[in-house]
This record gives sequence, structure tokens and C-alpha cells, in this order.
Amino acid sequence: MERTAEYFAKHQREISLSEFFEKNRHLLGFDNPTKALLIVVKEAVDNSLDACEEARVLPRVKVVVKHVEKEVYRVSVEDNGPGILEKEVPKIFGKLLYGSKFHRLKQTRGQQGLGISCALLYAQLTTGEPAIVYTKTGVNQPTHVFHLKIDVSKNEPKILKKDVIKQGRNALKTHGTRVIMTLVGRYRKSKGIDEYLLQTAIANPFAEIVYQTPNNERIVYKRSVEYLPKEPKEINPHPHGVEFGLFLRMLGFTKSKTITSFLQNEFSSIGSKTAKLICKIAKIKQSFKPKKLMESDAKRLLRAMQEVKIQRPPTDCLSPIGKDELKKGLKQLFPEAEFIATTTRPPSVYRGNPFIIEAGIVYDKSREQEKQVEVMRLANRVPLLYQMGAGAINDAITKMNWRIYNIKHSHGSLPIGPYIIVVHMCSTWVPFISESKEAIAPYPEIVKEIKLALQECARSVKIHRSRQERARHEAIRLNIFKEYFPIIVQNALELSEKKEKINYQHILEKLVKKVKI
Amino acid sequence: MERTAEYFAKHQREISLSEFFEKNRHLLGFDNPTKALLIVVKEAVDNSLDACEEARVLPRVKVVVKHVEKEVYRVSVEDNGPGILEKEVPKIFGKLLYGSKFHRLKQTRGQQGLGISCALLYAQLTTGEPAIVYTKTGVNQPTHVFHLKIDVSKNEPKILKKDVIKQGRNALKTHGTRVIMTLVGRYRKSKGIDEYLLQTAIANPFAEIVYQTPNNERIVYKRSVEYLPKEPKEINPHPHGVEFGLFLRMLGFTKSKTITSFLQNEFSSIGSKTAKLICKIAKIKQSFKPKKLMESDAKRLLRAMQEVKIQRPPTDCLSPIGKDELKKGLKQLFPEAEFIATTTRPPSVYRGNPFIIEAGIVYDKSREQEKQVEVMRLANRVPLLYQMGAGAINDAITKMNWRIYNIKHSHGSLPIGPYIIVVHMCSTWVPFISESKEAIAPYPEIVKEIKLALQECARSVKIHRSRQERARHEAIRLNIFKEYFPIIVQNALELSEKKEKINYQHILEKLVKKVKI
Repeated sequence: MERTAEYFAKHQREISLSEFFEKNRHLLGFDNPTKALLIVVKEAVDNSLDACEEARVLPRVKVVVKHVEKEVYRVSVEDNGPGILEKEVPKIFGKLLYGSKFHRLKQTRGQQGLGISCALLYAQLTTGEPAIVYTKTGVNQPTHVFHLKIDVSKNEPKILKKDVIKQGRNALKTHGTRVIMTLVGRYRKSKGIDEYLLQTAIANPFAEIVYQTPNNERIVYKRSVEYLPKEPKEINPHPHGVEFGLFLRMLGFTKSKTITSFLQNEFSSIGSKTAKLICKIAKIKQSFKPKKLMESDAKRLLRAMQEVKIQRPPTDCLSPIGKDELKKGLKQLFPEAEFIATTTRPPSVYRGNPFIIEAGIVYDKSREQEKQVEVMRLANRVPLLYQMGAGAINDAITKMNWRIYNIKHSHGSLPIGPYIIVVHMCSTWVPFISESKEAIAPYPEIVKEIKLALQECARSVKIHRSRQERARHEAIRLNIFKEYFPIIVQNALELSEKKEKINYQHILEKLVKKVKI
Repeated sequence: MERTAEYFAKHQREISLSEFFEKNRHLLGFDNPTKALLIVVKEAVDNSLDACEEARVLPRVKVVVKHVEKEVYRVSVEDNGPGILEKEVPKIFGKLLYGSKFHRLKQTRGQQGLGISCALLYAQLTTGEPAIVYTKTGVNQPTHVFHLKIDVSKNEPKILKKDVIKQGRNALKTHGTRVIMTLVGRYRKSKGIDEYLLQTAIANPFAEIVYQTPNNERIVYKRSVEYLPKEPKEINPHPHGVEFGLFLRMLGFTKSKTITSFLQNEFSSIGSKTAKLICKIAKIKQSFKPKKLMESDAKRLLRAMQEVKIQRPPTDCLSPIGKDELKKGLKQLFPEAEFIATTTRPPSVYRGNPFIIEAGIVYDKSREQEKQVEVMRLANRVPLLYQMGAGAINDAITKMNWRIYNIKHSHGSLPIGPYIIVVHMCSTWVPFISESKEAIAPYPEIVKEIKLALQECARSVKIHRSRQERARHEAIRLNIFKEYFPIIVQNALELSEKKEKINYQHILEKLVKKVKI
């Protein structure tokens, strides 16, 4: 043995979370400059929409992307949300894994408290520039300005400059937040920010989005509805999705005094009757103190919870886009479309997590006939732009039988035709395949629901198209009829040897009206 | 605005790293019970081999996997490494992101300080059981025993029990570490622990691995070489792979007093001449203090470093398996094989990181002729068992032209035949596609090297096979000759009308010998 345990002990060190993600930034999708620019915009916009929605404000988000030099871009995202308290600003932007969404089961765009601070981390790693945050919490409040960096070796914010402004060009108007980051990126129109914001507008028809591109174009997505969606409720975990380690911790932390109240208070879908039944099966006294439960008893209790038939989780925790709202959004963005079918499925459950699938099919004859359809995938109102070929939505689309709806398709690939297919999944916990949130894991329950939603839409499209086809046929027949009618009438008159003139134009109009009814 | 910034501030919280990985355990590959059982074994074995190799001890690793009940398994991994100092044990096993490998550029199996503590985290999440760690740092030292859990909300170790034993069944013999974890898993022979340990034995021919399966079989992989590989050296980062944010931090932390010494001390491949040239291009005084450099100057300095022609990084930091060692390992594990070709390529570089590719092709006629070849992928001596269809190795194999080596193949899929293909990449930084280390990112430089290595092996196999084919032909011809020779001789004698007997057996033997030479 050349080296002993003492030698190794000298090299052991704690690794800061920021260092870890700096070295492993591909985990969050920062693996090339094109994607990085998109993700920085996306994290800021997702946060803005979450904040506005939770504060119950109709969102107005302004995105400005400026080309600074070579591969350097400056991104500014501003919202009219509730703003952020002065003391909270540094941690929210300058500390990884800090936020309000991680410990709750609630349908939100962000989940981890990682997105925006990782965007800052990436920006400072590539350009060394600090982020600038403006925030204002109310009409009569001043605008606070922070110049921030992340102290990577400590995972703590570092404030370079702090300011308060009352008015002027940079001051915010009513309330809200503006964040500015400078980073190495690359701008592409397709599959980039433009596409992301378009799809965001579809999934959030209540949001106004103003976007100034690096080429200095101004794109405005107006609201297609003037009301916020119903607010999703926070829920407790469903008993069928809880693992033993977490269950033990819940037993340790609970304020409930008895097992039955613990079961009712800390889990969804357990009423007093079910709680009593669980205790009976586990052979544990109902009035037992949760904190005093032995591990072996806890194991029996959890097992009993899995055995007992329990209601599905509640679904008022979900906030779908809505069938009509989705259609309105699509209509506004595809005004050329001849027909749009949308649907919102009833709630369903995978592994104890409630979810809803929505879908839409846009039929737009002006698009290419012989190209694969375009697919838009959304999860909790956020567009997924990478890994198109993976996950539940792709599985459902490529394996469904489209031919019975008269849509060209060979099994295993995307159907062919002038269609845009939109699929949205909302859930209190979307099971992403990877941390960079690019595709949804293909749980059978999820794939099945997506297929059902798509079939419903495809059926409507088929009906529309065959009606249209029939109308076309009728029109052709009518035209033929119109053309020959005068001749027939004329000939009939001649044959009958009557010399009087008949106003057959009048008769024709009457006949056509009858046919059309 | 229904909710204000105050409301949101109340909900902001710090998220512990353990909580994060508990909820996102798929990031580390724990996404199903089969894979989880494998990863727990893998993390422990990788750590054991790293520790032994760095302490310069010929490793002996003992793996015992026991089926406890239903889907519960108990895994025990024991090594003869240097052991761990008593005070370091809790953090190494019970704190995520703690370790000795993260801050160094050195070829090791583990990189992050995340693997073994995540295995513990998964075990306690699924069964609630603590891990048990035994460790002994020298022949005259006692064995320390810890019963450990992770305090998830703090990401700190929690010691449930601590013990010192001097002798007895559980005491370790000379020095080393034994870790025992109980977890929910599923055991499959294929693509599981068995396969992983087999491939580990190939990549580490100097290690003895003893494995007791859940079915109570005992499998022993003996050493095929009795010496450790040359020790890989730690290196500094190469100037071409450094980003601005990190560069600024290096400037802040350095102990060097001048820019030129900073460049020479903190980076690989920069000599005094190059350092001076960089300063000249960047228009910065050589004797300037690194800590006092302005950001704009630092930017110019980094740009100059990218412009100047700099040597490739040193390659003594790499420790390949070795052409002969790889062949010995393969021979021992495939004794039936008719022919084995192996190669170690010269070092190469991607993005400033040095790497070496090694490959082997095993030709074993007893395998199925019409099946796809078997592929074994290794990175820094660790087998990669998932995502077979992704990454650089798969790209190289499926896109290479195998037919010119007389191996059946259609472009884009694996070749067909009784072959086993082994590819190993070693580097100070292996660019994995995902954090769960399942596939290597297909950098063009890497794919190219893999192809070259495979072509070399395939050529040897082709030569062997055509030699063999020729030999077969010769043998057939010789047999015909042997058969007819006596008759010819006899007839010749009769024709010559000589009555004496000739010992043509003797002549035949002489002839055959001549032909064979």
C-alpha cells in the first residue's frame, strides 16, 4: 500500500452545487450555444408567467434579445408580475436550488428552483458579466436594481451593486421584474426562441407577449382570451405514489397526534373511513402517536395503504388550457387554417399523480401536402423543443393508426399532410425523461390518453373533410345542372310545340334553393 | 394583483441537494428496480477499484448480493483498499457532493462525489434501512463500524450507531472497506450485475473479483495480469478548453505573482516562450499581478491564449488498459475464442482534453453466425450498460464499412457474425451524454479514433481468417495428395519393372514437411 487513508483524507472536499452544475451544465440543457440562448429566455419567461399567474395578474411579458458581438447576446425579460421583495432578490437569482415550488405538489411551469439561477451561472461562466435585476412590488414602491453574480465555490449570491430608482427610462411602471443577462449563444430562427414564444402563446392564450428579435423585428402575440385560467390547487401526495423513506420522514415531521389524523391530513384521497380501515389491516391502534411508530409498524402501515382501495387523487389541482381557449389561440396564430379541432380529456392518473391531456389538430391546406406533420409538444403550458423523437407524445403519434382518418401514415413515423398537431399534458408532476425537460416519460397511462385525445381530434377533421368533399361534389353537380337546365327547358318547350316564352331562370333559382336545404 | 411579493417571500426556501436528488433520482439512473440494483453495486465497486488503484494495491473485490424478500436485496461490497479515516466515513457515504475527485483533472472511475451517497439515498428511500460501513486502515488498526443514514433535509450524514471491533467474523483482515446497503431492486442476469462484473474484469485485468449471486452461485474472475497499470498523472486544464468565467476565478485564486508564471503554473502545455508570446499578443505586461487584472484585460488575455498555437496536452495523465493486457483479459474470459485482436491507439485530443481509444475484436466460431455482434463499451475502465444505441461507440460501429473485412453488415446497424467488439475510451474527462454515464458524446475526434481502432482490429481478423481459409485449402489438397501418393508410387514402380520395395512412407513424410514450411 503506497498511499494510506491519511493521504486520501487530505483530498476530500465538499463540492458546491454551483461548481457541480457549472461542470455538468449539459444536465440542464446548456450543451450548445443555440440551445443555451433559448434556455436562458425560456427560464426567465417561465418564471414570469408562473409569478403572474399565481399573483392572478393577466401577464404581459416583454422579451428583448440583442446581438452584442460575435457569439455574445444580451437577453432582457420583463413582466408585470408581483415583483420580488428586496431581501429575496439575491437568493432567487444567485443561489441554485432556492425557490418556492419544490416542496409543493402544484401545477407550475418551474419545479426545482434551479432554472433561472443556472441561466445566470451559464451567463457569467461564458462572458463574466453580472446579471442585472430590476424589481418593483407595487405602484407606490421604487424600483430596486441589483447587479448580481454567483459565488460559485459557495453557491451564494454576490451583490456587485445595489440601487434604488424612482423614475426614469429604466424604472418599472406598475409592478414586476426585469432580468438582463449577457451570454455566449447562437441565434437560429427555427427551433429557437421564435418557435418557443409562438408555442408559449398557444399554451397561454391569456398572456400578451412582445418580442424584439436580434434582427430588430417586433413580434406581438396578443391575448386571445381576457381571463386567467382557474387557479390550480396544491394537493397532498397520493398514498399510492409514496415510498418508504419519504413516508418515514413524513411520520417524523407531522403535527398530527394520531395515525388516523396523520393519514387524513398528510395524504390526498383518504377519508376517516379509509384511514380506520388502513389501521385495521396494519393492526395498528388508530390513536397511536405517529412519531412513536416503530419502523416495522410503519412498514406494515404503508403496505396497508397500498392494499386498500383508495379514491383517485383530486383533479382540481390541474389547470388545463381548455378546449375553447386552445382553439382560439390556434386560430389567432394560424388564421389561414381551414379547420381546427381541439379537445380536453377528463383527468387521469399515473403512479398516484393526476394529469390531463389536451390535443389539437390544425388543418391548413396552404401547407405542403407531402411533408410530415408539424408537432408541438407542451407540458404545464411550456413548449418542449428538443428530443422530438422521444417520449410519450412521439410514441402516441407515431404508433396510432392515422389511415382510418384518411391521413397518410406509415407505422412508426409521423403522419404526412398539411396538419399541425398540438399535445399538452398538465400534471402536478410531469415525469420528464431528463432534467433538461425535453420529453415526457412514456408511462402507458399517459400514452393511452394522448392517443384518445388525438383520435377524437382526428375524427373531427375526418368528418369536416368528408363534409367538405361532399359539398364540393354537390357544387359540381349543381353547376352541371345549372348549365343544362335552360337547354332542357328550351328543348322541352320546343317538343311541346308551345310558342310562349317561360322564365326558367326563376324556376332554376327555386330548384337550387331546394337542393341546398 | 391578488397576491403580492410578501406572499411569495413567505414560500421561498432553500432546497437541500439530497431532497433534489431524491425527487430526481432518474438523473443518476435510478429509474427502475433492475437498473437501481445494478447501479448500487456499480458505484461501490467503482469506488473500491479507484481507491485500490490510487493506493497502489492489487485490488481484490468481493461482491455479495442477497435476496431478502420480494423486491428487496442486500448488497455487500468489500475491498482490500486503504480504508477510510474514522472521521471521514460519515461524509463520504452520507453527504452528496463530497469527495476527492471532483477538483482534479485525473483519469478516475468516479468524478463527482455523488455516486455512493446517492446509492445510500436510494436504499434508505426505498427500504428505510441504514447503510453499514466497515473500514480498517492498516493491519494493526481496529475495524470501525458505522450505521449511517442521510439527513435528507440537510444533506448531512446521520450516525445511528458506531462501533469498534478488533476481531470476529465481521472484522476486516488487513485493510479495506466493506459497505452494506439494503434496497428495492430486481435481479436480471442479462444486462445486470453479472454482465457488469464480467466487463469490469476485462477492463481491469489486474483485479480479482469474487461475486456471490442472488442464486448463491459463486463466480470468480481471477487476475490475468499481476501488476497495476502505470499511475495516471493529474494535469492542469489545457488553455483551449477554458471558459471566461472559470478563467476569471483562476485569476482570483492563483498564488502566482506574474501573468507569465500564472500561465505556466495553472495551465498545461504553456512554456515560458508561449507565455511571453501570449502577453505580447494581449498587450499585457508580463510582470503584471494576476489578481489586479481588469476584466477587459482578462478577456484579451484569454483570447490571445486561444489564438496562439499551443502544444497538445500531455498524455501521461492517461492509463489505458494496454493492448496485451486487454488481450489477456479477453482470452481468460472467452477461452473458446479462436482469435482475438486488440489495439491501443496513440493519444488524441478533443476540446483540449486528451484521450486514448482501445479496441478488441473476439472471433468465436462457437457463437451464432447470423446474430448481431455483441458490443462492450467501456469508459475509464467502467462498463456502460444502458443506452446501447446512443453515443460515439455506437456511431462508429454502425457507420463503419465492415464488408471490406468480410464481415456482414448493412450501414446504420450492427454487423452480423460470431464476434464480440470491445471499445474502451480513457480520458481525464469523459464527455457523457447524460449524468447517469450511459453513453459517450459523439465528438467527431472521438468517433474517428474509434473507427481507426476498430479498422485495425478488423484487419487482423480478416488476415487471420484468410490465412485460416488458405490453411484449410492446403490441408484438403495435402490429404488428396497423401491418399494418391502410395498408388502413384506403386504404379510408377510397376511401370519401371523394378521388383524391389520402396519405403514411400518415409518419402511422403519428407514431402509433407516441405509443403508445410
